[in-house]
Amino acid sequence: MSQIIPRVGTGIDVHAVAEDPDRPLYVAGLYWPGERGLAGHSDADAVAHAACDALFSAAGIGDLGTHFGTSRPEFAGASGSTLLAEAARLVRAAGFEIGNVAVQFVGNRPKFAARREEANAALSAAANAPVTVTATTSDGLGYEGAGEGITAYATALVYPVNDAD
Amino acid sequence: MSQIIPRVGTGIDVHAVAEDPDRPLYVAGLYWPGERGLAGHSDADAVAHAACDALFSAAGIGDLGTHFGTSRPEFAGASGSTLLAEAARLVRAAGFEIGNVAVQFVGNRPKFAARREEANAALSAAANAPVTVTATTSDGLGYEGAGEGITAYATALVYPVNDAD
Amino acid sequence: MSQIIPRVGTGIDVHAVAEDPDRPLYVAGLYWPGERGLAGHSDADAVAHAACDALFSAAGIGDLGTHFGTSRPEFAGASGSTLLAEAARLVRAAGFEIGNVAVQFVGNRPKFAARREEANAALSAAANAPVTVTATTSDGLGYEGAGEGITAYATALVYPVNDAD
Repeated sequence: MSQIIPRVGTGIDVHAVAEDPDRPLYVAGLYWPGERGLAGHSDADAVAHAACDALFSAAGIGDLGTHFGTSRPEFAGASGSTLLAEAARLVRAAGFEIGNVAVQFVGNRPKFAARREEANAALSAAANAPVTVTATTSDGLGYEGAGEGITAYATALVYPVNDAD
Repeated sequence: MSQIIPRVGTGIDVHAVAEDPDRPLYVAGLYWPGERGLAGHSDADAVAHAACDALFSAAGIGDLGTHFGTSRPEFAGASGSTLLAEAARLVRAAGFEIGNVAVQFVGNRPKFAARREEANAALSAAANAPVTVTATTSDGLGYEGAGEGITAYATALVYPVNDAD
Repeated sequence: MSQIIPRVGTGIDVHAVAEDPDRPLYVAGLYWPGERGLAGHSDADAVAHAACDALFSAAGIGDLGTHFGTSRPEFAGASGSTLLAEAARLVRAAGFEIGNVAVQFVGNRPKFAARREEANAALSAAANAPVTVTATTSDGLGYEGAGEGITAYATALVYPVNDAD
């Protein structure tokens, strides 16, 4: 069969809400003024991180820890968009093109709908590929419903690029 | 490259079990007699809702809130199958055909296996595309294990349709 | 359109940590010495089970309960790799080839990074197709963060095989 067969990947990322009320919130490549931030060494952008993990997963080249762990301290405090741009670069360097990435996050905050297009534009620019973000709540259940954290679920489709193309 | 590249999407939906013991249960396009229902303004069919969100996510056209929110009150009390049919219509109107949708829900109830084919048929008819549903428990853990609610996880594959077709 | 359209599937599997401190741990097709096992009748390999469910989901042929339930007692104590090999066989018998399977598990233990390649090799050999595994924590939240269990999320891509090929 001469047809290109794409590959799919999955990425999940959870971040707890920070104890520090002054910590800024970054979700889906955007800064959310007036919202308490998520905890983490980086900017804790669970949506961007899940997108990275889904890309790595689809390409079969490890995960966030593999690429942005202690061996690469230059990414220690990087923004979600910076990590996503680097993840996309690594996936392309491994011989794949990116079809698309889709992420849904589960959490009470931030209220997402009004800024969806802005988020899609920011993350798509970072990945240089279509990235779309959606949001829902957990209907008051679990840690997301208690306002203790958010979970982002991502899927990605990549396909191998022929060197001779 | 002349090959059509499909797009993938993800959808998650959580509904809590209703406090009202007489609330009817709707899951995966079916009514489940004798089971306590899920809470929500609509029929709270988490499986159908996750399928809608996965389709919207794959097509990059927003989410349930975008399409079935307060701006379209005619869908306020709609069944899951009605919403899925409308979601499929919107995805096609945006220039995509639906490859398939797959949903797995996590919860103690309802006991799903005996009605899987019936559910698949109901949702596939609504979407006019293959929709398959599977089920599992959370091994007693989390809110699903406590019988407080169910979570549905969906993925969908769509592909762009050439206007000249 | 003559192009083959692939199908995607989703699989989730949760296993609680066993009460028996001597229960061995199996995750992602590997034995993890010195780690407390997961509870279950089988080897409780949530990663392998989620991979099976994602394959069944993509092919639309039911789920773990359908194929490895009480009607097939020969699989009652089977390893995750054995189940995955059988799942792959069933998917192929249903007329599909496997593009790839990607799984991410959420849990505190085991520490996965050092054995990722080993796990990928074990599961890919079982499925005779690319299976890649990644890992993350839930940032201390939920039952995964409490060390009570792990959740594995899988996605799979399959495509129909022409009988005449």
